[in-house]
Amino acid sequence: MKIAIALFDRFTALDAVGPYEVLSRLPGAEVVFVAAEKRIYRTDIGALALLPGATFAEVDRADILLVPGGPGRQAMMADEALVGWVRKIHPTTQWTTSVCTGSLVLGAAGVLQGIDAVTHWGAMTDLAAVGANPVSERVVIRGKIVTAAGVSAGIDMALTLAARIAGEDVARAIQLGIEYDPQPPFDSGHPSKATPETVQVIAELMRQTEQAHAAA
Amino acid sequence: MKIAIALFDRFTALDAVGPYEVLSRLPGAEVVFVAAEKRIYRTDIGALALLPGATFAEVDRADILLVPGGPGRQAMMADEALVGWVRKIHPTTQWTTSVCTGSLVLGAAGVLQGIDAVTHWGAMTDLAAVGANPVSERVVIRGKIVTAAGVSAGIDMALTLAARIAGEDVARAIQLGIEYDPQPPFDSGHPSKATPETVQVIAELMRQTEQAHAAA
Repeated sequence: MKIAIALFDRFTALDAVGPYEVLSRLPGAEVVFVAAEKRIYRTDIGALALLPGATFAEVDRADILLVPGGPGRQAMMADEALVGWVRKIHPTTQWTTSVCTGSLVLGAAGVLQGIDAVTHWGAMTDLAAVGANPVSERVVIRGKIVTAAGVSAGIDMALTLAARIAGEDVARAIQLGIEYDPQPPFDSGHPSKATPETVQVIAELMRQTEQAHAAA
Repeated sequence: MKIAIALFDRFTALDAVGPYEVLSRLPGAEVVFVAAEKRIYRTDIGALALLPGATFAEVDRADILLVPGGPGRQAMMADEALVGWVRKIHPTTQWTTSVCTGSLVLGAAGVLQGIDAVTHWGAMTDLAAVGANPVSERVVIRGKIVTAAGVSAGIDMALTLAARIAGEDVARAIQLGIEYDPQPPFDSGHPSKATPETVQVIAELMRQTEQAHAAA
């Protein structure tokens, strides 16, 4: 069971690491982080630096393909090395998956034409623009294409997928292994549950992050 | 707001990345991953390779110290570079925190003597052995010491801490930013909710991982 996770500059760490922590625990799992070059890739915020295990050129198939998201939507979708690799790997997979704005990369690769999919709540319009049919659910499974909502949704997606692959017993055991018994102190994880003020605060925080990135 | 996250061989990725994804979004946050040497550190499963931003020798204070866990409990607790650094940094912090078996490192550094704390459900006995008072809660806050239960509990811990540091409005906004609206497909994330069979399956998966590690 070869699991290939795409890396690129400014990916969001939890998009990749949430599902990694679940899927890598599947019996027989062999995970590889794959990127354009064998160099350090930094996450959206910059402090976290990952080294891929292989380059796009070195990986030509995968049982599970996972594309994380990141704040640099336009750059991701225009990244021909990344998008071209996704286009190449997708026909070889049992499961083609994404977390957060990773679905925009699947879309840019032509994988989501007319297909129900989800992305980060703030990017649903972009998802329609790449030909997908945006569905506001946490995890959307259509055939072998599995998309998850924003960032932390990758954990729920991966557990759902783990059950399909290895059975519910194994998926439940992995949930117990990572003690995934969520008890968030607040209930504002989706715009439908958050106040307009909360939406404004995060929009402002995201704007500041983009400014800091542009300045750096 | 300087946030120092300890890295060591075989750390569990989500222990570090869950809180990273939350705390790094705090206004003014400056996160640094810190390890004994400036070299690649691999997670428990091996595929994920992180490069620290600084060495223990280069960091002598932090506003928030975070120690993730990992499966190599005995090795972590006997890692004098790691434990010594925690002992050095703790007096400088506003918050000293851990996720999963990271609390055993805090314990080995003498930080938890007689203090209520939590760890992964499978390590509560070890926690008592380092002088802490094990409490079976998801997040335990005692003074400036904040410990979280296993792996994914770090996200709940970090949101709780974010509210204390920057106010509930900001914490709620970060929750929305990472779309943390958990919808696990099963409810077996704690032994109190799992069947004995599920506990057995994860124990066997963990044993296999240890064997694979010993063989490699």
